[in-house]
Parts: sequence; C-alpha cells; structure tokens
Amino acid sequence: MKPIVLYDPSPRTTQDIFQPHVYKNFCDEFNVVERGNEDSSNFYTAHLPTADYIVGQPSLPTELLTSAKQLKALVNVESNFLQNMDYQYCFRNQIHVLTVSPVFAQPVAELALGLTLALARDIPKAHCDFVEGCEGYGLEANQNAMTINRCNLGFIGFGDLGRAILKAFDGLNPSVSVFDPWLSSELLHREGLQVASLDEVLQTSDVVMVVASVTEDNAGMLGATHFAKMKPGALFVLMSRAEVVDFDAMLDACHSGRIRAATDVFPTEPLAQDHRARTTPNLILSAHRAGALESALFEIGDRTLADLRLMAKGLPPQNCKRAEHELVGKVRSKPVDKS
Amino acid sequence: MKPIVLYDPSPRTTQDIFQPHVYKNFCDEFNVVERGNEDSSNFYTAHLPTADYIVGQPSLPTELLTSAKQLKALVNVESNFLQNMDYQYCFRNQIHVLTVSPVFAQPVAELALGLTLALARDIPKAHCDFVEGCEGYGLEANQNAMTINRCNLGFIGFGDLGRAILKAFDGLNPSVSVFDPWLSSELLHREGLQVASLDEVLQTSDVVMVVASVTEDNAGMLGATHFAKMKPGALFVLMSRAEVVDFDAMLDACHSGRIRAATDVFPTEPLAQDHRARTTPNLILSAHRAGALESALFEIGDRTLADLRLMAKGLPPQNCKRAEHELVGKVRSKPVDKS
Amino acid sequence: MKPIVLYDPSPRTTQDIFQPHVYKNFCDEFNVVERGNEDSSNFYTAHLPTADYIVGQPSLPTELLTSAKQLKALVNVESNFLQNMDYQYCFRNQIHVLTVSPVFAQPVAELALGLTLALARDIPKAHCDFVEGCEGYGLEANQNAMTINRCNLGFIGFGDLGRAILKAFDGLNPSVSVFDPWLSSELLHREGLQVASLDEVLQTSDVVMVVASVTEDNAGMLGATHFAKMKPGALFVLMSRAEVVDFDAMLDACHSGRIRAATDVFPTEPLAQDHRARTTPNLILSAHRAGALESALFEIGDRTLADLRLMAKGLPPQNCKRAEHELVGKVRSKPVDKS
Amino acid sequence: MKPIVLYDPSPRTTQDIFQPHVYKNFCDEFNVVERGNEDSSNFYTAHLPTADYIVGQPSLPTELLTSAKQLKALVNVESNFLQNMDYQYCFRNQIHVLTVSPVFAQPVAELALGLTLALARDIPKAHCDFVEGCEGYGLEANQNAMTINRCNLGFIGFGDLGRAILKAFDGLNPSVSVFDPWLSSELLHREGLQVASLDEVLQTSDVVMVVASVTEDNAGMLGATHFAKMKPGALFVLMSRAEVVDFDAMLDACHSGRIRAATDVFPTEPLAQDHRARTTPNLILSAHRAGALESALFEIGDRTLADLRLMAKGLPPQNCKRAEHELVGKVRSKPVDKS
Repeated sequence: MKPIVLYDPSPRTTQDIFQPHVYKNFCDEFNVVERGNEDSSNFYTAHLPTADYIVGQPSLPTELLTSAKQLKALVNVESNFLQNMDYQYCFRNQIHVLTVSPVFAQPVAELALGLTLALARDIPKAHCDFVEGCEGYGLEANQNAMTINRCNLGFIGFGDLGRAILKAFDGLNPSVSVFDPWLSSELLHREGLQVASLDEVLQTSDVVMVVASVTEDNAGMLGATHFAKMKPGALFVLMSRAEVVDFDAMLDACHSGRIRAATDVFPTEPLAQDHRARTTPNLILSAHRAGALESALFEIGDRTLADLRLMAKGLPPQNCKRAEHELVGKVRSKPVDKS
Repeated sequence: MKPIVLYDPSPRTTQDIFQPHVYKNFCDEFNVVERGNEDSSNFYTAHLPTADYIVGQPSLPTELLTSAKQLKALVNVESNFLQNMDYQYCFRNQIHVLTVSPVFAQPVAELALGLTLALARDIPKAHCDFVEGCEGYGLEANQNAMTINRCNLGFIGFGDLGRAILKAFDGLNPSVSVFDPWLSSELLHREGLQVASLDEVLQTSDVVMVVASVTEDNAGMLGATHFAKMKPGALFVLMSRAEVVDFDAMLDACHSGRIRAATDVFPTEPLAQDHRARTTPNLILSAHRAGALESALFEIGDRTLADLRLMAKGLPPQNCKRAEHELVGKVRSKPVDKS
Repeated sequence: MKPIVLYDPSPRTTQDIFQPHVYKNFCDEFNVVERGNEDSSNFYTAHLPTADYIVGQPSLPTELLTSAKQLKALVNVESNFLQNMDYQYCFRNQIHVLTVSPVFAQPVAELALGLTLALARDIPKAHCDFVEGCEGYGLEANQNAMTINRCNLGFIGFGDLGRAILKAFDGLNPSVSVFDPWLSSELLHREGLQVASLDEVLQTSDVVMVVASVTEDNAGMLGATHFAKMKPGALFVLMSRAEVVDFDAMLDACHSGRIRAATDVFPTEPLAQDHRARTTPNLILSAHRAGALESALFEIGDRTLADLRLMAKGLPPQNCKRAEHELVGKVRSKPVDKS
Repeated sequence: MKPIVLYDPSPRTTQDIFQPHVYKNFCDEFNVVERGNEDSSNFYTAHLPTADYIVGQPSLPTELLTSAKQLKALVNVESNFLQNMDYQYCFRNQIHVLTVSPVFAQPVAELALGLTLALARDIPKAHCDFVEGCEGYGLEANQNAMTINRCNLGFIGFGDLGRAILKAFDGLNPSVSVFDPWLSSELLHREGLQVASLDEVLQTSDVVMVVASVTEDNAGMLGATHFAKMKPGALFVLMSRAEVVDFDAMLDACHSGRIRAATDVFPTEPLAQDHRARTTPNLILSAHRAGALESALFEIGDRTLADLRLMAKGLPPQNCKRAEHELVGKVRSKPVDKS
C-alpha cells in the first residue's frame, strides 16, 4: 500500500525537476497519480479524497480541500505561494504546506557574490573593452576598483537568501548589518549580526545587498532619497524583486556615478528593447539568471522525494521550507514563467 | 639621530605608494634621502656608507654593497626580485631583503574569486548580451551555469597568492588539492589540504587555479596534453604569469568548448589588437588588473613604514615578505611597467 | 488593549528566568495574569477564554483547551514536552507550541567540548593528583593524552544540541559522521556531513558524542556490544540522557580501559552514594550541570518576551523552538527538578 | 653521496622523537653520524668540516663553527635556543637555525582551550566532588559557571602559540584583543584583531590568555596591580612560563576569589610539596603537560626529516621554525628536562 501522491508540477516539467533515476525512485516508492492534461477540477475532485500528498500548486478552493481527508502535505514545486488555495485550512488540518524554494538559495548566493565582485572590479566592462581592443592595463584600468575584504555589508531583508549570501561571503570577512522588520533583533544578536535601521544600512554599507521579498508594505521602498544616503561609490546589488526599488531612481543613481549597481531582476521581463537600463553606466545586468540552474531544478525533485520519504515514515519534512501561517498571505509572489 | 633611509622607489612614485599623512610620518621618523634624478651610481656611492635602510630596488653590484656597513634592510617596492644586486651578500651580512608583494595578495584573491564566479555564471557575456538586447532569461540563459559550492578546487602553485585565494573561497566550501613542487607535503597535510600531482589536479578539479611563479623549469608547463586531461566544462583561471601556459593551447581548449578560462595575464602586454584571444569564446579577459589597485599601492607605503619602525626598534620585519636565499635566483621576475 | 498572557512558570520561578528589567518590560507590554498559588483548574477555567498566550506548561485537557478561543501560543518554559496537554488540538488551531530549550544548546555545547578536552588531556585527574602532591610532569603525565585536532567526531543523535556542539568544535577541524535515524541524509549531505550507521560511528570515531533524545525505541540502545566496537582509547561523551545507554556496560568499558568516558547524566539523580560510577577509572563525572547556568535561565525570559513581541505584531516566533506534530509524542521527556 | 647529518638529539632520545619507520627513512636518505657517548668537542671537531646538517643543539663556540664549511642548517630538537652557540655566525653564513617548537603549538592550544572551559565550568572540582559524594546538581552546582561564546579573549603575547590557541577558539566566536610589544599593529589589524595595551587587555577580557615568552624585560611583569585590574570573576590562563607573572600575586588573586586561574607552569618544577598553590581555591593545576605528548614528540622527527629533504633539494625549510637574528638573544630559554 504505497502512499498516493497527486503529481501536477506545471508550470514545471518532470524533465526539468527530476533526474531520471530520481523520478524512477519516486514512482517506485509512491503511487504517483499524474494529472497530465486532465481538467484540474475533475482531477482533484476525483483523487483528493484518497490522496496522501500533492506535488504541485493547484488552485484548491476550500470546498475541494475539505474532501482531502488523508492529505498530509502539499509540496509546491513552483516555489512560491500564490493566493490560490486555502492555506489556513491546511494549517488547521496539519497538512504541511511546503515549498522547494531553498534549492535556489545557493545559486542565488553565488551570483550575488559574483555580481558584487564583478562590480568591485568591473569585470564585465573590462572584458568587453578587451574584446573591443580598448582595454587599459593595470592601475590605469582600476580607477574605481575596490576590495571587498572587511567591508561593511548591509542586508535589506535577511531571509534564507540573505543567510546563504552571508555564508558565501565568509571568506571576505564582512562586517554585517541587517535591516529586516520581520526578524527578531534577539535572533540576529545571537548570531553576532548588527541590527540596523534602513538608513543605517544605507549610510554605512560599502555593499548593500537587497534580498527583501515584496510585501504589501514595501513596494518601491527604496527611492531617490534612499540612494542619496548611500556612501559615494558604494555597491548596490538587487537580487530579490524589482518592485522593492524605484527602478528609475536606481538607474539615476548609477547614471550620476554616485553608486554602482547590479541587478538580476527587472520591472518587466523581458525588458523593453529601448529601456534605459540597457545603456545606464555603472550598472551590471543579469537577466533573472540567479536561481534557475539545471542543478537547482533537479534539486527540486531531490528535496521533494526526500521529504515525502520522511513523512511516509512519520517524520517531519526537513528539505523543503514550510509555509508560516502568519506570512503566507503577506508576500506577493508572482507566477514562475522564466526561472 | 634618526635612521637614514635611501629612498629610490622608481618605477613607482611617492604619490602612488604613500598616502600623504603616511609619507609625512615616514619623513618625520626617518632621515629620508631621496635619489630623485641624481645618477644612481653617484647617489649610492655617496650615501651607502651611512645608510641604515634602502627603500627601492637599485642595481647594486657587490663592490657598492660592500661599502654599506650600516645597512640593515632593503625594501623592494617594485615587489619583484630582478637579478640586479648581490642578494647573497645581503644574506651573509644580515641585511633583510624585503618585498612588498603581500599587498597584492588580497586584491588578486578577490579577482580570482570574481573571475571564477564570472565563468561559472557567465556574468560578462550575460551583461553584454543584455546591453545588446539579446539576453536570454532564466534557465534558457543558464545552460552552462554551475555552482561552485563544494566543488573540487585545484591549485597549480600555492604560495602567498594561493593561500589568499583559498581564504577568499572559504564561503564556498571547496575540496582542495594542491600541486606545488616547492612545497612540503607535510605542511599541506597539516593544513588539511590534499597533495596532488599535476595530473591529479587537472583530472579531478572543477576549478583549476594557476598561481605558479615562472621559474627556469616551468615555462610553458601547461600545454595541450594538460588541457586535454581536464574535466569537460571545468574552469581554468590563470592569475600568475602567462609564461606558465602554452597560451595557444589554452585558447584552443576554450575554442573547442572543452574548458572555460579566465586570464589576467598575457604573453605580451598590451596584447596585439588582432590577437585571437580577443575573440576566443569561453574566455574571460582581464588586462593585468588583479593587483594594481590604488588601495594596494598605498599599502606599499604602509607596510614599508611599519617594517622600518619595527627594525628601528630592533625587531624583525613582519609586514613585507623576505627573500629566501634558496629561491631568490629561481623565480624569473619581470620589471613592473603597468601594475 | 494589551494582549493577555497567562503566566504560570512553575517549576521555574520568575527570579530564575527573568532579569528584573526584562520582567518589567514583560509586564509593561503584556497584560500578565499570574497563576501564583491559585488552583490550576480554576485558574485556567477562568482565564483561558480570553487568553492570548500561555507562558507555562500546565496540564490542559482537551475540554479546557476548547475554551481558549483567542489562544495563539503556549511557551513551555520548563523546556520539555510532557504528555499533559492535547498538542494536536493546538496544532489544529494554529496555536504555536513553543519550548525554550534552545537556551541550553550553547552551554551544553561548551561543556561537551570541555569534557572532551578534559578526557583527551585528563585534566581533572591531573589537577587532583597535583592537589594530592603526586603529580607527574610533562610526558610522564601524558601517557594517554591525545590531540583532538582533525579527529573523527561521531554523533549519535544530531538535533539542536548536536549542531551547537559541532559549531563549538569548529576550531578543531573534526571529520564528522552522524547517526540519527530521524534526520534526512540529504540534509546532512548538503551540510558536508557524513551520514553513518550506528556501527560506523562507533567503529571509526575518536570521539563519540551522544546527544540522542530518549524515545520509545532507543532506551538502552548502547550496550556492551556497542562499546566493544569502539576504537581502543576512544572517548565517549554522554550529554543527553542516561537512559540511552546501558550505564553498567559503559562503566565496564571504562573500567577495562577500553574507552574513556565523560557523562553529565545518570540513571538516578542524585546518584546513590555507593554507586560504582563514583570510583570507575577513565570516567569524568558531571552532575547534570550542562545547561542550567544562570545566564541560560535568564535567556528563557529573553526569548519568551522576544517571541511574544513578534507574535503580537503578527509575525511567527523565532526565538523559541516549535513542537512538531510528528515528534511531540515520541520523545520521552522528564519533569525538570534540578536543571 | 648522501648528505651528512650529525645527529645528537640529547636530551631527547631517538625513541622519543622518531617513529621507527621515520627513523629508517632518515637513515636511508641521509648519512647519519650519531654522536652517542663520544665527547662532544671531539665529535664536532672531527665531523663538522664535512657536515651538511646538524640535528641537535650542541655547544658550538665560534672557532668550531668556522670549520663547518658545508653546514646548511642546524635543527634544534630540544625546541629552545640556549646561548650555547654563535647564532650570528650561522646567520652570516646562511646556515638555517631551526627549532621544532611548532610541534607543540597544537597540543598547547588544545590544553589552553580545555583549561579555559574547565575553569568556566569548574570541571575538575565538579568531578572531585562527585567522587567524594558531595556533588551538587544542576543550577546549584553552577553558581560560578559562565559561557565562553562571544566572550572577550585577551592575549598577553601572541606568537605561534597564541595563533594556535586563537584557531582552537574559533568555534566560540571570541572578540580578540592582543598585547604583544614585539608585534606590528598593522599585522594584527589586517587580521581583524584588536591591538591593545596591557591594561586594556586586563580590564576588558573575560579570559586572559598568557603566552608571552620570557625576555629580559618582562620577568614578573604581571603582578598584584595587574590582577586588580581584571574583571571580577575573569579567567586567567597561564601557558607559557611562570616567570612572566608574580606567582604569589596570582595565587592571592585566586584565593580572594577575584579571578579564577589555570596554570601549566610553575616557578619550580616539581613544585614543593608544601607550596600554597596546591591548596589555593579557584585554581586549576596542570604539571607542565601542555606540549609533551607522544604524538607531538614524534612530530619532531617528522618535521626534521621533512625539512632536511627540502633543503637537500635546494628548497627552504618549511616545517621547523627559523631563528630570527633580532630575537634569538632576547628570549630566555630554559633547558628541557621534563617536557
């Protein structure tokens, strides 16, 4: 009697999230019922009453969920939490609501570190200049170069991404300050981190790392007045969501030379061909490439299977992240198209 | 009675290596006799007999040195050891022969880390594509992307630069192997590093980091047969001297797509405008920009003054690096023009 | 309208767990209703309907809990989970069930490290011998001494205590293996830890660290056959609960000289005056002193207040540990008397 | 033609410093001429002219040394530098003067950490009380217990031992200050350490770690006025030499309860049976047991052979420590009897 898993990964595909041998184990160890092209409402109406787990992120109105008498967990493999199901019902019924988002933390962290060093040392422009035959050598080409070792590194937002980024910076001995209104000061203090106001982070940091989620409160929270508070020449690295900043103000601050920035996210993606960001100086562009590595996507399957195994043994999940009943409604997630 | 320092920093300049307040302290605390435009031979003939220290890297034949009865140290601020003086005479007379090369270790390490991540995530090309309006988003643009965390990192050469680079990688948890015929296996083992042959480094590393000095033995030591041994898709980062590799063979290996490489050094600098390296794919170019940061050059003055102060108190120097009588003749240094 | 907190810390006391200024803040920011000597059933019957939080660990049968319509969290300040309330009811009603047990992790970790080094270097006996005038000097007194650096450190159980201990060992570069049937192999692998069977841990470790909780399955799990598998002269450090081992078998293994052990826990506490453990050689004795430091107890108040504040702002608790619905019934906790 | 090594390890013995297979390699790879019981003067007169290396620490007056035309290095396996030879002659003739003292750094560091934790948690007394049947349990027994995590750790002296100790403390996240008049502030700053005066170290540290060598200047440097400056209840750990402190003043400070101390060294060894240190409270006693572990002594042979091999290949030694011409006369070493 293998546990029943309703499998409905769209918009992701099996081939993206499972290595073949992992998928085989998944199918061997569980009774996997895949939705495929079947109508979603029909599929869930038919199968929810006997399902132990869902792997997917279907629209599940409360009335459907109430039929899910065996359901123990839902693993969201899109990695976000859209407002398409009754999360509170799940919490009340001890149904774990899980997301695979931790698979993206390490790739995002490495890109954040890479972009920071790319800014500090102007790696993309130096390369482009070389290709074009106009490179400068040595000191001449290093007029704005800076070292990162022992710099002040300020975080705006400090969730899982922030922690992964901080670990990646470990070899560069940063002095760290954190602004995150959702985090407990006591927690940060115990970890030896400096709790700071938003202004303190902006005013004292050599590198400002933005990994804040978008909430109902913080859209456009970083505007011209904020960039004006940054140290001249400081680096600004935007890794979470473009909506957190006033994008034009950020481009202005780069254009003026006051700051140098790198961004992996944009107000619209793809960005308009004539968008000024494409020609703004002191700006490194990365087209939403932080997390979506083949290896990270395969880890979705790995973590999903690992947690299904644990739960099937009566243990709590340990590889995916759990939704919090206090927060699940506060973060404005977007559907995944390209990531 | 302040100690007498003969000061002759050329090809470096005071303005490059001393911040004004440090230079002021230097002149206040020591009797600084600057050569300026005076003929070198005349200058040293006149002043060596009473000099306590030299800051510079003059040609000093043995007969001149023998007159230096008070000399306690020579600080080479060019940061190399050309064969232009009788080093063995210095060693025999307990004259410290020092170089400021450690000032470059941290900037080089950060660029080495930055170039590694730039390769792993194709940061320069992704930026250039974005500027040109042909960027791909997300997974589509990450076909060759890889994470560095827990990778096999192999060093070819492991002196001060290698150590600084390893520290910079600390947040990425590498498994490290080292090939360096000048280093004691026992030393590396005590530090938890894997001692490896050259072939082992090439065959097992995800990232090959080249920081070997050029000696009489190793010119062109890395050729086509060596690149053929590397793991497909592995990264090759050349930070020390172009002479260590067969540069064409490296470009071939990039061109074929077998490896991806980044280099900060070139067979000739500036590189010919029509050199094929400029258009070789899978190659990131950096024009000898690793060490020559303004902050690093200022650290030359800082370390020089710090060690002069220690020696004036009868203590050994601790901020500059000492020449080794066994090695000083083995490394083929080049004069600094641009760095 | 301050949130209502039912405050019933017994067997702990306000003076033990709150520094005065923290207690003052607690009372200022919350409407604290203390049980004092009032009959528990009467107290909770009267106050549960309007309570927002409970700080304490009362017996709460289901019928009482159903009246707690406002209840958002219960903070267990005894730090265990006795079977005296309907935890599942809490989970179903999104009432956080929290424990302050994390306050003990750091003190326990430091004692675990201290006892390991005390065993490795025979610190207590060396001191006692000196007091008694029979000390040996130098090598003569170091016949069984060993270094811990780069040793094999094996964990039996690897929860919060294990993690804190591992961090404390960070300066000693251990090679770590973990046996913990409740933990996901994937999780441990991602952290670079070696997943091992119980036998592998016993056979390969220079230091065996026992931090497993007592469950229905593992009472007496480590017996004579297990000690026989350990490396001769290996160290055994028992930090969690005496019930995990066959205590007599452990004493036999110490007595024979096969292993050296340290224990902070005993089958009965206080231990009988004539218990053989008191005179067993190769054994260091610590009378349940690992966690109960004044500073740790004060941290109970700090973390409790910090989490109440977060929850009052609509945020999830971050300083106390949450009960897991899968595990809360599996661990056999004991009431706190002395700790 | 194997290089000739004069081998004269007394007061150490071959069996103490060489594992058999290492000794075999030593004899296979080098022409080992052992002094044995031969008269020292005769031995060196006969063999110095053809010797490449000396392993030992003989009395070598200048006139004997001048005959040593081939000599490239002397490896002092006693690990100190007595004033029994013309060191300056060696320096002038590029003869490396090496000591095996680094073999003791790790064992000393681990004991220093162990003693610190033993003090912080009163491990020896807790054990003795248990043996004697008068143990207290839990909080009752922890009245003076403290945690070390994130404490202020102050070093008096910061040579190789200090560095090894700091690494061993890595898992306890200390804030570090250093008083060492022989060290460059710039060096310490680059490593992120706080440079402090002696008074600052005493006044601000929770743990004072003494690893200063004895020089002509610092005998008895830490007296009653210094202990009076320490924080009440702070820990004082003496690892280098008893001569650095006014031992009676230290015992007074322990007796009064102002500080708690641990010491591995004593004004005379063995200490008089009726010395008050034996009964001073708040004091942990260790009979010069820090370095002399069997494994450390064997490492003497390992490092000696490793460096002989390097030098025989024309490379500088890397495993032993080199004498500095500025310092070799300043440290007051003692002959090894028991260590």
